[in-house]
Amino acid sequence: MVGTKMRTAIYPGSFDPVTNGHLDLIHRAARLFDRVIVAVACNESKEPLFSMEERQKMLKEATASLSNVETDTFTGLLVDYVDRRNGDAIIRGLRAVSDFEFEFQLALMNRKLNSRVETIFMMPKETYVFLSSKIVKEIARLGGNIECFVPANVRKELLEKFAKSSR
Amino acid sequence: MVGTKMRTAIYPGSFDPVTNGHLDLIHRAARLFDRVIVAVACNESKEPLFSMEERQKMLKEATASLSNVETDTFTGLLVDYVDRRNGDAIIRGLRAVSDFEFEFQLALMNRKLNSRVETIFMMPKETYVFLSSKIVKEIARLGGNIECFVPANVRKELLEKFAKSSR
Amino acid sequence: MVGTKMRTAIYPGSFDPVTNGHLDLIHRAARLFDRVIVAVACNESKEPLFSMEERQKMLKEATASLSNVETDTFTGLLVDYVDRRNGDAIIRGLRAVSDFEFEFQLALMNRKLNSRVETIFMMPKETYVFLSSKIVKEIARLGGNIECFVPANVRKELLEKFAKSSR
Amino acid sequence: MVGTKMRTAIYPGSFDPVTNGHLDLIHRAARLFDRVIVAVACNESKEPLFSMEERQKMLKEATASLSNVETDTFTGLLVDYVDRRNGDAIIRGLRAVSDFEFEFQLALMNRKLNSRVETIFMMPKETYVFLSSKIVKEIARLGGNIECFVPANVRKELLEKFAKSSR
Amino acid sequence: MVGTKMRTAIYPGSFDPVTNGHLDLIHRAARLFDRVIVAVACNESKEPLFSMEERQKMLKEATASLSNVETDTFTGLLVDYVDRRNGDAIIRGLRAVSDFEFEFQLALMNRKLNSRVETIFMMPKETYVFLSSKIVKEIARLGGNIECFVPANVRKELLEKFAKSSR
Amino acid sequence: MVGTKMRTAIYPGSFDPVTNGHLDLIHRAARLFDRVIVAVACNESKEPLFSMEERQKMLKEATASLSNVETDTFTGLLVDYVDRRNGDAIIRGLRAVSDFEFEFQLALMNRKLNSRVETIFMMPKETYVFLSSKIVKEIARLGGNIECFVPANVRKELLEKFAKSSR
Repeated sequence: MVGTKMRTAIYPGSFDPVTNGHLDLIHRAARLFDRVIVAVACNESKEPLFSMEERQKMLKEATASLSNVETDTFTGLLVDYVDRRNGDAIIRGLRAVSDFEFEFQLALMNRKLNSRVETIFMMPKETYVFLSSKIVKEIARLGGNIECFVPANVRKELLEKFAKSSR
Repeated sequence: MVGTKMRTAIYPGSFDPVTNGHLDLIHRAARLFDRVIVAVACNESKEPLFSMEERQKMLKEATASLSNVETDTFTGLLVDYVDRRNGDAIIRGLRAVSDFEFEFQLALMNRKLNSRVETIFMMPKETYVFLSSKIVKEIARLGGNIECFVPANVRKELLEKFAKSSR
Repeated sequence: MVGTKMRTAIYPGSFDPVTNGHLDLIHRAARLFDRVIVAVACNESKEPLFSMEERQKMLKEATASLSNVETDTFTGLLVDYVDRRNGDAIIRGLRAVSDFEFEFQLALMNRKLNSRVETIFMMPKETYVFLSSKIVKEIARLGGNIECFVPANVRKELLEKFAKSSR
Repeated sequence: MVGTKMRTAIYPGSFDPVTNGHLDLIHRAARLFDRVIVAVACNESKEPLFSMEERQKMLKEATASLSNVETDTFTGLLVDYVDRRNGDAIIRGLRAVSDFEFEFQLALMNRKLNSRVETIFMMPKETYVFLSSKIVKEIARLGGNIECFVPANVRKELLEKFAKSSR
Repeated sequence: MVGTKMRTAIYPGSFDPVTNGHLDLIHRAARLFDRVIVAVACNESKEPLFSMEERQKMLKEATASLSNVETDTFTGLLVDYVDRRNGDAIIRGLRAVSDFEFEFQLALMNRKLNSRVETIFMMPKETYVFLSSKIVKEIARLGGNIECFVPANVRKELLEKFAKSSR
Repeated sequence: MVGTKMRTAIYPGSFDPVTNGHLDLIHRAARLFDRVIVAVACNESKEPLFSMEERQKMLKEATASLSNVETDTFTGLLVDYVDRRNGDAIIRGLRAVSDFEFEFQLALMNRKLNSRVETIFMMPKETYVFLSSKIVKEIARLGGNIECFVPANVRKELLEKFAKSSR
């Protein structure tokens, strides 16, 4: 049965790089919304390891099998981007209490900036609660095995990146 | 434009009684899903002030204006009820860190019991972050003004309940 | 030098019974405000060990040396009591994160009920962060030594209470 | 190689009933200490579902394969019990932030009561972070499947208990 | 009626720049204390957007209507500054659990360094719980509307600062 | 009586520099394990104040009286280091809720990387809950008295370091 209205969810993030935790959330969101846009934020201040283009490319490859998921990049305010793409909801993952507080403040602020924009929170699989792009990069940098934390294409890129930097 | 699939969200709770914070969340959910079922849980162990029927009746009156919202009651496991009603997601409100922990554990447990059931978390308006059925009952019991915390029909029922009990 | 205005702080609580942590906070408050009223709340629902009268009596004895501290009891809404006593601030102790959340919600609610009433939070001495009336009663009940947790008069009352109940 | 000193860890709890999360922790502790005593606390105030004897019996069966683990029951103060059994450390499981705060206060209090007694915290397997005796009993009561949450002997006892109570 | 003693509260912070959340707290403190000194900390390590002089100037303009509030700047240890200014209490705002933990540790440390110095915590209006100087600067940098987050004079300075930096 | 098996605990950290809080934990661990290795992590990204060699030297001096404690330095993944040294457990100190979340994620990740490695958490004395290397450096830099926060040898090094840098 078709729904009463076409609904779009936007999942913004740094994705530097995308992890299996992010992908788990994307799969869950793709079941709840007609369309999911995974949007790579610019985030210059965080000095990302990968460029926006590299980050989007890895995401695109990793979500190729999901027909109602597309990837994008954006600069400027998230709420303005959500407006331009006719997003009905922002999706954010919650892993821990510290996440929650930060995300709560961000969501309240975004609502203040644009009351039409709703944020919903989803939980990754419990095996991914400890997972973050930051910790994956740290382990890769120290030569640890990251096979169960990121998809194969991302692993390849990380190994290349750190091989270069240690040369 | 119609959506690719009809989606149903289930918002379970004690609603003893429904507050303006609950209603705010129901309005938000009604914009994101084709159908929202607000489901009053039995919860005998909590010794509710109002019976399941009273709680559902107050909810029904307070959500009468929302065409894609219906009310119901259930006993037994929540995941079984969600299955019976073909729910795509359970909706839970998050107000504070303590909520979050409890809700997180509950959602993980529900996923364990039925992996098809997804839980999503939404935030009420910031003016309602301090609001709970428990605190409203306490204020009503002590004779405080609860006009901005509950809809008019609920206020009437609360005043009657406490008038009776103090007679 | 005298201050521009006489200011009164109200420190409400169950005080069932008063502990050294409460007393530490009372001493701190007595240095910051012209007058401090320690107000024993009725709290029937908590089934207190000591009656309101017993709780106030123990508090009175334990604060006898502080000339600008008085004790009282109250029923009904705290904000109404603060109004009647011309209180400028409610004082609450914070020991831990869980305290904080609950206190935060309570303070926001009280502000909603009476915008004139301000809540301020103070910290007990670090040696008392683990201390609560509940844990002291538990230890006393099990025959543990409570000498460093409560003043001598309270210890005497607790020993009598549990001696009676175990007879 | 033998250690410099024989060391005993005591793992106290209600164990009403023991869950797979508890058992996971017991296995971990049994690798770190020469002897582990799992001690069932009386906890009358919590109105346990199973008697102390039933709880110890289930624990005994579930830990039968671990040669350096024994079970016991105790009443009175935990620190006194630890002293009597020559315990070197109390072991407590941490699953969530809310656990942590409570456990932290308890451990500080126990140190105050007996400075010789050390508390160490361990983490169960991540699949058990959501698990508690309380939630298992709730699911069993509502007829849910508890196979992956408790050992077989405990499941049998729970089913019998609830079969009786619903008759 | 005059108070028994003149009391001074010191509200230290980076104020880079002052927000409506800070101003709300200053108004509340000005009602509870005879004198409030808002003290801009040097904080070189944080690489502030505005100089100490700019920050104090904006604060001075924004608090001009409050007769018992003055502004100042300080370097070195806060507790030494409080001593020099005869402060009776340090005031800190609490917005969230993460704030609380950090502030708690800071307050305990300051008490250790100077036992005479008391810290009290106050809550801003609930509409400001999400507000921070950092988030305001981020929104201003991305061209968002900051009208409801900072006073007019601060908004003007922020727009000029970011206009310059983007030229 | 000797233990059934020789057990080694590894206490990793930046120790930049070691504080009395760290030393308190080391004393506690030395009573529970046959051997404790305090291991200074490289942590280039944190831009330490002291070199790895300086940090180890200060630790060595401060733990000289403990016969079953040795010091070391390591680079690379912690779990690999623990393997090389035949460690039975990683020890981490918990002071606050924010610590807990971070440590919890780290411990789960380490378990994922090497399931043989167990992490246990211990609590420093309550007087040290507010203490961190970071806050000690900040106070030393601002000329505050750090006598009760670090051992004498560390205090000397800190004073020299900041004397040099302010020259």
